[in-house]
Amino acid sequence: MTTQSPFMTNPVVATIMNHRSIRKFTNDTLAPSQIETIVRAAQMASSSSFMQAYSIIGLTDPALKYELREITKTPYMGENGHLFIFCADLQRLTVMGTEQEKLDMKMMMESTAFYQIAVIDAALAAQNAVLAAESLGLGAVIMGAINKDINRLDRMLGLPQYVIPLFGIAVGVPDQQPDVKPRLPLEAVYFENRYASETEQRERVQAYDRDMNRYYLARGANNRDTGWSRKHIDLLKMKLPLTGITDYIRSKGFNVT
Amino acid sequence: MTTQSPFMTNPVVATIMNHRSIRKFTNDTLAPSQIETIVRAAQMASSSSFMQAYSIIGLTDPALKYELREITKTPYMGENGHLFIFCADLQRLTVMGTEQEKLDMKMMMESTAFYQIAVIDAALAAQNAVLAAESLGLGAVIMGAINKDINRLDRMLGLPQYVIPLFGIAVGVPDQQPDVKPRLPLEAVYFENRYASETEQRERVQAYDRDMNRYYLARGANNRDTGWSRKHIDLLKMKLPLTGITDYIRSKGFNVT
Repeated sequence: MTTQSPFMTNPVVATIMNHRSIRKFTNDTLAPSQIETIVRAAQMASSSSFMQAYSIIGLTDPALKYELREITKTPYMGENGHLFIFCADLQRLTVMGTEQEKLDMKMMMESTAFYQIAVIDAALAAQNAVLAAESLGLGAVIMGAINKDINRLDRMLGLPQYVIPLFGIAVGVPDQQPDVKPRLPLEAVYFENRYASETEQRERVQAYDRDMNRYYLARGANNRDTGWSRKHIDLLKMKLPLTGITDYIRSKGFNVT
Repeated sequence: MTTQSPFMTNPVVATIMNHRSIRKFTNDTLAPSQIETIVRAAQMASSSSFMQAYSIIGLTDPALKYELREITKTPYMGENGHLFIFCADLQRLTVMGTEQEKLDMKMMMESTAFYQIAVIDAALAAQNAVLAAESLGLGAVIMGAINKDINRLDRMLGLPQYVIPLFGIAVGVPDQQPDVKPRLPLEAVYFENRYASETEQRERVQAYDRDMNRYYLARGANNRDTGWSRKHIDLLKMKLPLTGITDYIRSKGFNVT
């Protein structure tokens, strides 16, 4: 299928295929109409049972942007571009219920299933936001580094119970044009009817490792002699203190049961 | 901002804003080039640290489609349209590590943080898939109902450790044209710098409830006298047996610590 079928394109597919994360922006600020378009696009994503279980916080206050730079230890964050923090949010419905209903709802709200639902809702919305931004000629990067001090970020944003930040998105006018990164072979990601065998998967990832080794060696900036899996296994072995995130999530009423 | 600023559009934004979930398809099957375009679009989404922590399984075997219909208790599922099952997948890197490395990686892999990362990766990819499908003139619906018997689905798909199904996406030629559903007011979803107060949120959701009450009463099919929050609070009070999903997720090595 992969080598013979013609690939189909149109302006939407072209925008999707042209994605690269942009981490450096000019000093231009976003127009209110651009911000509104990005947020309204985010809102149009599907959500589980139409619960719309996410929120977005835009950071405009320079002091808060500076604090986020401290939290993430990422110098480029907050220097320029507009910052959106995407949150999983099960709070709206609890606000609307009676006290008795809140108790009745608690068991579901605090289940792993609903945590997962809210995370998915937020991420579906986020991808619409990224594509809308890119379609307007802007660049974007999704940033997980906001988790480096999640309790501080929570206080900074004044998040109530049942609201947790998941990731940030920085959006601005691109001041760099990195390469589009080659993805895993389609055959390593897409299967028909059953998951592939471990042997098949290993062969596919090994082929990708060879491709990515060439890519990492050849690219203009930040080039190095590594493959995809070696790079990530080394990252995974670093054992960051992740239990703080687990505790934080549970303290907000997510993923408790 | 919301009432005064001009909303910006282009083919990408137009496709995003035109989204409605399609649950009824003609008998046309997807061409291989359509399937490939959808999968390659999914692959282009950002992923956390470029881990690409998701997989997609396409169901083409009629027996498996029938089984999925039994699992989801959703008659339209599997009748027509192409079915994609989106999975969180941290398995590829564990396959590539040495035995010692697998032990070293275990603590991170099995953390809630990495469970969250893989769920986000899968959902970002999924939204690209939905938009690519819609841009090709197809319709799509994301379906959480695959969780109704998640252990059976796991066996059916032959999923290894560190791979869990999150949701399905059915894609096909639309045989219905439902209304676009009004979303929450922008002010109830997007905040500047700090989360809104409970009083503000309550007022915004109440305004939306009135709008949605009119929408639910007026729409062509499945009309009823309810608001958005009442409908969902009643759903949430039903207390489905969700702990089975929690146990399943942990049994696969996700969300353990």
